[in-house]
Parts: sequence; C-alpha cells; structure tokens
Amino acid sequence: MTRYKLTLEYDGTPFAGWQRQASGPSVQAALEDAVFAFCAERVTVFGAGRTDSGVHALGQVAHFDISKDTDTGTVRDALNYYLGDVPVAVLVVEVVGGDFDARRSASARAYRYRILNRRPPPVLEKSRVWWVPGHLDAAAMHVAAQVLVGHHDFTTFRAALCQAKSPCRTLDRLDVVRHGAEVHIHAEARSFLHHQVRNMAGTLRLVGNGKWTADNVRRVLRARDRSAAGATAPAAGLTLMEVRYD
Amino acid sequence: MTRYKLTLEYDGTPFAGWQRQASGPSVQAALEDAVFAFCAERVTVFGAGRTDSGVHALGQVAHFDISKDTDTGTVRDALNYYLGDVPVAVLVVEVVGGDFDARRSASARAYRYRILNRRPPPVLEKSRVWWVPGHLDAAAMHVAAQVLVGHHDFTTFRAALCQAKSPCRTLDRLDVVRHGAEVHIHAEARSFLHHQVRNMAGTLRLVGNGKWTADNVRRVLRARDRSAAGATAPAAGLTLMEVRYD
Repeated sequence: MTRYKLTLEYDGTPFAGWQRQASGPSVQAALEDAVFAFCAERVTVFGAGRTDSGVHALGQVAHFDISKDTDTGTVRDALNYYLGDVPVAVLVVEVVGGDFDARRSASARAYRYRILNRRPPPVLEKSRVWWVPGHLDAAAMHVAAQVLVGHHDFTTFRAALCQAKSPCRTLDRLDVVRHGAEVHIHAEARSFLHHQVRNMAGTLRLVGNGKWTADNVRRVLRARDRSAAGATAPAAGLTLMEVRYD
Repeated sequence: MTRYKLTLEYDGTPFAGWQRQASGPSVQAALEDAVFAFCAERVTVFGAGRTDSGVHALGQVAHFDISKDTDTGTVRDALNYYLGDVPVAVLVVEVVGGDFDARRSASARAYRYRILNRRPPPVLEKSRVWWVPGHLDAAAMHVAAQVLVGHHDFTTFRAALCQAKSPCRTLDRLDVVRHGAEVHIHAEARSFLHHQVRNMAGTLRLVGNGKWTADNVRRVLRARDRSAAGATAPAAGLTLMEVRYD
C-alpha cells in the first residue's frame, strides 16, 4: 500500500461539509468516489480539518492508502479528471510514510475569515464573505483579538456540538487587517475547537462596530459561557488556508 | 429631471451581457426594473461599456434620469434592495449634470483579464478566470504586449460583429503581471473595439506558451486580419475595473 497526501482547494457552498454524512454531499465522499473511479479501490480519505458546510479551503490536507503504485502527477490529474464539475481540486499529491496522518500529524492550521465591510451587498464575492454593512474599526478589532492569543479555556467560543475532550487550546495568531472594503481575520493554532474561528469572528465584530471593547472580550473569555459572546459568524466567510506539518 | 451616475459591480455569469436583449437577462434590464420598482419611472440606463455575456464588472459606470429628487444614499440603497438576488450591486451614486454621458464622457476604461495558470482546474475562482494549465512565461507576454501599446489599426483584434466606425484605437497600457498561479493582463484605453481585450489575451497566450514571439504579434497586428491572431479568450476572465472621466 502507498499513502498519498493531498493538498486540496474547494468551494464549500454546495457541500454539507468535509465529512461524509447522510444529510448531503461531502468533500470526503466526492474524493473517495474519485479515488474509486481512478483505481477501483474503496478507501477512506482522512482530512486534517472537518470543515463545516459552506466553509472553503485553499489548503486542506488529506491522506489515503491505495495498493496502486503510480506517480504523483498521475494521481493528481486523474482525481481532478474524475472530480469533474464537483468544485474540489487536488492541488498537490505527495507520497508519504505510513506514519503520516493528515489530522494527527498536523502541527498548525491557518484559517482566514473574510468580512465584506461596505453598504452595498456582495456580488462577485457572494458566498465567500460575511457581509457587514456598518463600518468596522479593524484596528480596534485587532487590539481586542490579542486578548484571545495564547493558551486559554475557549469554552466561550466552542460550539455545543464540539466533540473535543478539552476546551483548552493555544491560539498562536489572531490578526485583523483591513484590505480596502474587506476586513480579514487570520487565525492560527495547532488545532481549533468546533466553530471557534467563526465564534471569535462574531465576537470581534461587536468590537469593530463599537459595541464592545477588548475588556468585554477578556470578560467573556473568562466566563467560559458560549452565550456570553457574540453570534457565530456565517460559514461563507471562512477558508482553511493551510495545514502545516513539522 | 435629475441625472444620476452609478458605479456598479456585477457577476456577468448569468447575464446575456450588459445590453437589454431578447436572448436573456441583461444587467441593463435588471437596473431599469430596479429603478421602476423604486420610483415607478420607466427609464433607460446607459452604460459606459457594453460588456459581453460572462464579462464581470468591478467599476462599470452608467447614468439615468428620473424626476424623483432624493439623496444619493437613498438611491443606492433602494436600487440594491430592489435588485434583490440579482448579482448586481450599486456601489456609488452621484448626481451629475445633464451633459454627463456615461459612454461618451468617458476618458479612459480599464480592464483586467485573469488567467489561472496551473494544472489543477479552477474551483473558488471558477467563472472568474481563464484556465490555462500549461506554464505561461508572463515576462515574455509583457514584452510582446508592448508591441500593441500606442495608436494602431486593431482590425486583427476586432470581432466581426464590431460596430465601431474606425478600427483605430490608442492603447495606453497593456501590462502582464504574474501573481502566484495567476497571470493578469491590465489593459487601458479611451475605448476598445468589440472583443479587443479578449482577442489580445488569446494572442498573448501564444507568446506565453512559447509558440509566438513579440515579432509574431507585430506581424499579425500589421496584417489587419482577425484570422491571423490567436483565438478569443473566454469571457469569464474579463472584468471591467474602472471608467474614468476627466
């Protein structure tokens, strides 16, 4: 058996999420079907992050094992061919050792959350951004974001559905930067809790429009209470940018 | 009557083009319907450039006259409201004099043509780019593009359907720049012939993949023969970025 590592781009809009499920099409099932079409082997494709419905990826990573031994360029081209019109593209294929695990071996994950901050609604970036019409103070958001950087109990920013054993995570980076009409939030950590980035984005928005300050963010983090913080920001704004391995 | 100038963003994908026509939905008709919904006045909305089906805009300009006299913010918000899910957004509304004409008063138009130059197909930028899998030499394309800058007879780069009286135009800028996996062509002129940018893009691609040199481009320009040049590049890669007025 050979283990292949995939780097993937996808448009999360039409999917029920990364993970195979009864409720709709998944990125995982689309890839597994493409692998089967390619080599007639039924495999499980394991992803580094289980992105939710509507969340995009420019650098998701996954792995699978097949007995067919061929060059990585052929695997990439064949999977892209069999994916057809499904909005998933295999960017890079590498052969890795049997101890490589896309999820467990990951040392860092980087997400970008895009807010379109203008009064007219999104058009060309629809389903790629969260539309916030009222002006956001990105500099204030960045200052407040630094409260969340470091090792914390993130219960306040964790979805009720979250299956992680511990609510503690180390957030390595949470930068807020304005690019014209867009405000981007860059988040990096070894791993995130379910909805953590979207919940932090929803909270930073309250800072951006002047309702909250960094002190409010500090208080709700300490409260360890999901209901104390801002609403969950929409999935459309979120993109998994990169998964790193030491 | 008050004349309003609009700056517009739209996704050209679902439209038969800017211009009202029997063959399908148009940006112009969508705007005229929104104006009617807003003030019950049936107007013609005049655009600066008649973009083709599939061509996008981040800065199209248009004008129309209505007797309703109200503030520009209300016009912008009302039109965006009545446009609903139609992928057109009114970015800016200004009151202009009766001598302002979106098309005739324009002193310059700027287009961007985006090529996705990588072997995996486009996903998040699908219908926004021309996918060219084979490597393109953007520097060679830029050198060859300079042959086209200046005042020339552009018959070679003009669609058979083009209704302009003269095939002569002054091309002020034709820059080719690589941004990672994308190659962008920036074209600026007072005005363009029908399909001119797409025909230039199709020809520069031949330079990019090494089939042609700047000398070939010079020869086909002089030939004044559409069939001498490269194929018309797809509409999806083209965006009207800006229309300027002195």
